[in-house]
Amino acid sequence: MVGHTGRHFLQIPGPSNVPDRVLRAMDMPTIDHRGPEFAEMALGIMESCKRVFRTKNPVLIFPSSGTGAWEAAMVNTLSPGDKVLMAETGQFSVLWRNLAERFQVDVETIPSDWRRGAKASDIEARLNADKQHSIKAVMIVHNETSTGVTSRVDEVRKAMDRARHPALLFVDTISSMGSIRYEHDAWGVDVTVCGSQKGLMMPPGLSFNAVSDKAIAASKTNTLPRSYWDWNEVLKANQAGSWPYTPATNLLYGLRESIAMLEEEGLENVYARHQKHGEATRAAVRAWGLETVCADAGEYSPVTTAVFVPEGHDADRFRKVVLENFDMSLGAGLGRLQGRAFRIGHLGHFNDLMLMGTLSGVEMGLDLAGIPHKQGGVLAAMDVLKSKDEGVVAVPRVAVA
Amino acid sequence: MVGHTGRHFLQIPGPSNVPDRVLRAMDMPTIDHRGPEFAEMALGIMESCKRVFRTKNPVLIFPSSGTGAWEAAMVNTLSPGDKVLMAETGQFSVLWRNLAERFQVDVETIPSDWRRGAKASDIEARLNADKQHSIKAVMIVHNETSTGVTSRVDEVRKAMDRARHPALLFVDTISSMGSIRYEHDAWGVDVTVCGSQKGLMMPPGLSFNAVSDKAIAASKTNTLPRSYWDWNEVLKANQAGSWPYTPATNLLYGLRESIAMLEEEGLENVYARHQKHGEATRAAVRAWGLETVCADAGEYSPVTTAVFVPEGHDADRFRKVVLENFDMSLGAGLGRLQGRAFRIGHLGHFNDLMLMGTLSGVEMGLDLAGIPHKQGGVLAAMDVLKSKDEGVVAVPRVAVA
Amino acid sequence: MVGHTGRHFLQIPGPSNVPDRVLRAMDMPTIDHRGPEFAEMALGIMESCKRVFRTKNPVLIFPSSGTGAWEAAMVNTLSPGDKVLMAETGQFSVLWRNLAERFQVDVETIPSDWRRGAKASDIEARLNADKQHSIKAVMIVHNETSTGVTSRVDEVRKAMDRARHPALLFVDTISSMGSIRYEHDAWGVDVTVCGSQKGLMMPPGLSFNAVSDKAIAASKTNTLPRSYWDWNEVLKANQAGSWPYTPATNLLYGLRESIAMLEEEGLENVYARHQKHGEATRAAVRAWGLETVCADAGEYSPVTTAVFVPEGHDADRFRKVVLENFDMSLGAGLGRLQGRAFRIGHLGHFNDLMLMGTLSGVEMGLDLAGIPHKQGGVLAAMDVLKSKDEGVVAVPRVAVA
Amino acid sequence: MVGHTGRHFLQIPGPSNVPDRVLRAMDMPTIDHRGPEFAEMALGIMESCKRVFRTKNPVLIFPSSGTGAWEAAMVNTLSPGDKVLMAETGQFSVLWRNLAERFQVDVETIPSDWRRGAKASDIEARLNADKQHSIKAVMIVHNETSTGVTSRVDEVRKAMDRARHPALLFVDTISSMGSIRYEHDAWGVDVTVCGSQKGLMMPPGLSFNAVSDKAIAASKTNTLPRSYWDWNEVLKANQAGSWPYTPATNLLYGLRESIAMLEEEGLENVYARHQKHGEATRAAVRAWGLETVCADAGEYSPVTTAVFVPEGHDADRFRKVVLENFDMSLGAGLGRLQGRAFRIGHLGHFNDLMLMGTLSGVEMGLDLAGIPHKQGGVLAAMDVLKSKDEGVVAVPRVAVA
Repeated sequence: MVGHTGRHFLQIPGPSNVPDRVLRAMDMPTIDHRGPEFAEMALGIMESCKRVFRTKNPVLIFPSSGTGAWEAAMVNTLSPGDKVLMAETGQFSVLWRNLAERFQVDVETIPSDWRRGAKASDIEARLNADKQHSIKAVMIVHNETSTGVTSRVDEVRKAMDRARHPALLFVDTISSMGSIRYEHDAWGVDVTVCGSQKGLMMPPGLSFNAVSDKAIAASKTNTLPRSYWDWNEVLKANQAGSWPYTPATNLLYGLRESIAMLEEEGLENVYARHQKHGEATRAAVRAWGLETVCADAGEYSPVTTAVFVPEGHDADRFRKVVLENFDMSLGAGLGRLQGRAFRIGHLGHFNDLMLMGTLSGVEMGLDLAGIPHKQGGVLAAMDVLKSKDEGVVAVPRVAVA
Repeated sequence: MVGHTGRHFLQIPGPSNVPDRVLRAMDMPTIDHRGPEFAEMALGIMESCKRVFRTKNPVLIFPSSGTGAWEAAMVNTLSPGDKVLMAETGQFSVLWRNLAERFQVDVETIPSDWRRGAKASDIEARLNADKQHSIKAVMIVHNETSTGVTSRVDEVRKAMDRARHPALLFVDTISSMGSIRYEHDAWGVDVTVCGSQKGLMMPPGLSFNAVSDKAIAASKTNTLPRSYWDWNEVLKANQAGSWPYTPATNLLYGLRESIAMLEEEGLENVYARHQKHGEATRAAVRAWGLETVCADAGEYSPVTTAVFVPEGHDADRFRKVVLENFDMSLGAGLGRLQGRAFRIGHLGHFNDLMLMGTLSGVEMGLDLAGIPHKQGGVLAAMDVLKSKDEGVVAVPRVAVA
Repeated sequence: MVGHTGRHFLQIPGPSNVPDRVLRAMDMPTIDHRGPEFAEMALGIMESCKRVFRTKNPVLIFPSSGTGAWEAAMVNTLSPGDKVLMAETGQFSVLWRNLAERFQVDVETIPSDWRRGAKASDIEARLNADKQHSIKAVMIVHNETSTGVTSRVDEVRKAMDRARHPALLFVDTISSMGSIRYEHDAWGVDVTVCGSQKGLMMPPGLSFNAVSDKAIAASKTNTLPRSYWDWNEVLKANQAGSWPYTPATNLLYGLRESIAMLEEEGLENVYARHQKHGEATRAAVRAWGLETVCADAGEYSPVTTAVFVPEGHDADRFRKVVLENFDMSLGAGLGRLQGRAFRIGHLGHFNDLMLMGTLSGVEMGLDLAGIPHKQGGVLAAMDVLKSKDEGVVAVPRVAVA
Repeated sequence: MVGHTGRHFLQIPGPSNVPDRVLRAMDMPTIDHRGPEFAEMALGIMESCKRVFRTKNPVLIFPSSGTGAWEAAMVNTLSPGDKVLMAETGQFSVLWRNLAERFQVDVETIPSDWRRGAKASDIEARLNADKQHSIKAVMIVHNETSTGVTSRVDEVRKAMDRARHPALLFVDTISSMGSIRYEHDAWGVDVTVCGSQKGLMMPPGLSFNAVSDKAIAASKTNTLPRSYWDWNEVLKANQAGSWPYTPATNLLYGLRESIAMLEEEGLENVYARHQKHGEATRAAVRAWGLETVCADAGEYSPVTTAVFVPEGHDADRFRKVVLENFDMSLGAGLGRLQGRAFRIGHLGHFNDLMLMGTLSGVEMGLDLAGIPHKQGGVLAAMDVLKSKDEGVVAVPRVAVA
């Protein structure tokens, strides 16, 4: 290993690479969170979050890790003993279920092989069977960071509508918001859970709940105790550009800048960029002769690609070889995928050449770690990336000698 | 107002002025929170926190506002219906009580006029009366940020010992840690609650629980539900330099640097510096002919001085005049002190000349706002500050003509 | 001394305190100085410099200390043996003369007691006597940083006009530009020499030459050799937003931001602010019973005040006491003023409360260093500062008991 | 082009990518350049420069572009009419010659085809022929940034010794210092000229002269006029950790940090890293079927590779395609190479994956710009990079299907 010369490649599926502009924005003196300058900033940020989450309703911001926003969704809407339906899609859906159970919420899980997304038809069947409407919420993870599978939230919504079931719809967008198309209002989501450190290009430390009127109504009558996460306290304070406690001012500086960057690029361009990088990454994986964890071509994640290593090989040892030789962090296989798969994050503040550095590191690492594979993944990825600009006529390349 | 030229004077009692070194430390790329570099940093920070909190036991760090650490203290040790005894000393003790009540904790409050600290004899009397030991915890605020009163925690401990009462002792040190002498172990505190944005010289966004063995034991059997704040999950993960969720990596960078700065200066020097600045501030207040909220000379806060404005005058209008004319933020009177008092923060990354700028701004503001006062507060403050260096012989000043 | 806690007070007459916004702007990746992004930035900066220097002509920017711009003025316009007339006003005029003599320029100096500015009538007399027009240039320092005296450049121009003398007019504005009213075009200056680290609120490292058509014409025929400083090479490259060598890109980032800040505040407001701070400082000096070096009330510098210490006292020892006790840097007496005077810088990114911290440090330092003085300088300064806002009615203060 | 998302690839042969640590070090308040803290820093930096330049003699630091240090070498040692011998190796040797001629130095040039380094035997022949020792200096560029050719300075020294010629040896190390092995003392160099923005990993704005005793002796008697560049003034001030004018304090902060980073990595490791990256780059160039400008395998530059585009193609259009499609800046062909070659910088704060991103961008750009080439350069580069770590056993890769 050459040591820490040059930039570290942080290619876990989040925290993602934070832009200099965002870090520099955070690197400013903290101001009075009760003063007029703060209030003006806060109100502006709240509005900008609505545009990114695609909602006209409030987006609450908590000084916490994304896990806090999972908890906030739960304790503001449910009561002990309430039943919820969760589509298990990977490690993060399991963790969210465990969290719910700590609050005596009765979670019914739709199991899966962790290689595909939430199945709308399964959800529809369960809801149809629930004639008493005892299911209070349906919980799905938009982008399963542990598997690289993106669930079709809009289809789940349609299934719920078809079942005419009043359950709330909770969606975890921690690794999708700001990277993958998402529509809080249009898709009828009741609580969108998010964190700052992935598509929003921020360091970790802020979390989010976008809430529907129906979710707010539920929060008026549910009985789970809460204080820090209490929506109504936050919503009340937010009206004046304030919080019920000291907000994480410097992280908010960063968020203002990161959303400005997303909007300068344009959300549609952001989504398209991530799609292209997902395609290029999978082209490399295919060329290496390896298999993605995601088994459904319609559910490939644009932000992270989980890749199986062949039987008998250790994905964690591979990651260690890559870290030590090429100063790149890749994501580990989590839960039942531990040691069997590694994950390539290609999200946030990212571009073609950063992706090529990343994939080159993977290809060299496979070799150094003795993982059987074919060569040329990087060439396949370049073929995808090169094709992007229709305006430039590419000439056929001379064949390799 | 001249506008934002020069540095804003952030003289609220927290967030305090963040040192450039701390902001710059935070302004670095986020790293993999599951990698070896992170673990090494995290373990080092955990040890350094022990030194600052003066404990051999763990100090848990949460990605949250200080309010979260209040909640964590509660939900990890108490059960619904438990009784606690709280010394009301000002607005923050009231807020903490309200929080407890949201979790169905039965709070018995020892009221006060908000001008003095927790009275050890009162606590002792209540505990002596509680023969069944139904009181599970005693809760006090070390430094009441709303009043500028510092309670004598060691005396409360002694009172509890004399009463031979098994209640836990919870202490809020949000505005005292890193500024006012504090001894988690030596004073027998069970849960110390803290936030990053005051004496620790950090932006807001991190909170802390230092915990005794007795507190940890309580957490094994209490029944309040929790997940994000759960000590045992954090303690387990912390052993390997990790957290059960994504930690606020960049804030941790800052904390590492801010504790390094505290230790470079030396905690004893830090405490002495704050004492001196408190004295100088009160000398100015006396010279102006104004009255501090704190009524007990043994309980003056070294970090914040709350000052009454004369009857018939509006402290908030005064603060507005100061902000608009001198670009300085002062703290508002809170709760029952609203409009009646203002607060001068003199804590954290601070020195003599910053204090003189601050007091000059107050003196000029009193004048511009038409608050009746005598002149010369700044001269009185200088007399205190000048006396600090015994090694330099000061000559008598020529009398004012 | 309390050590480096809180902010250092950098109250030398430059480098001045650099705003966070400027430091943060510089703290960005260096870009290709031959690429389109750089060119766009460079052309914008060149235009903005014209607005600050108040000229329609080019302002050349050199990667160098301000001393380099002194040299550039000389080597681009003069030839060995040329005669120039220099008004000696203090140490910096002496240094500039010495520089000229190294290039075999024949400098005739109009001497002074270093307590007043360039005398227009003296210059007029010399020029009138120079019937052969052998004097090629008149050189004056707009603001003598070593004495706190501001020369009346417009009157010198008028004197030259009255004498109908064709000499070029060179003006050093290193410590005045961006702080004291200055008009390159309107005052008929031929070469304005400037540096980045004072009123322009930048770190040192950039210097400037604003040039008249007449100066450029002189540069076509003069014979002093030069390469780095050659105007014509720079002017040619500048047309395309480039330089003949690698420019100091990150310093240019800072300059862009600092000029933006000057223009946000408004140059007229900037000038007025410095005037007020100069007045307040002199009010303090008078109250202390001390004497300013500047002996002419019409020439007081708005950016720096040089103060004599009484006979038998050592100004440098005083400065050491201030540095060690209050972490404030004051300017030394230079040249013939060494040990006899100290200098207070009150320029650049500065405001009322920073000034009050500064003057408090001086007042306390006088005391600690045993310099005989009266007390109450800070009160006198506050009286000046308070009076600024006509919109707020100030009440008479109660007399000191 | 996707716009400025992700990091720009600055792959010109300098300015190179500045490490975050260096930018952050510069991003601190400017201090008093006459105070004790500054002096301590300055003396430390001067010592550290000696270690990097490999000399026991002084290394002078100028606030200027590297071009200034070229001029300083000249004006401190030569007199008008002096004769010097220069090995023309590319554009920068030409520019240096032009500079010399502006000072009436008589430059004899040893011409070349710009594809190889200074030829020691040619220099020896000229010196042998110069019986009167009229040649006062031999000037060579260690690493010709315009061609990617590294001259063998030690062989030139030996040739001079063999000729027993007293000429001074001037070496431009602007793009080699801190990247390519260099020995000021051991190689008997008299003036080493350097700039901050390449191997020293700094933004532009500082330049350097390392000087031998013989060079200093020459500076006592030569007659070219100078002031800003005058060694003796700087050397005198440097003894006390000062400069004869305001130094570029914040750039010095950065330099302190960048040299610390070089020494943490170890100069030998730094040299080896650049060697490997040069090899990998040339492996790619060969695989593409393109030709490097450097024609001598013993003179390949480890820091920059200049590549010819085939006849009839425009290297500048290629660079534009790369910039617009992949947000990467490559170096232009300079002088006689304009349009015929492009340059890949692989120096400074750089690592394997940054190189792979770079080479991928070149390979895709060749395709998009229609430059005839073979594919697979990136694979060839990876073969070089992979081989570095002997401790890991690499398995043979499965052949491409």
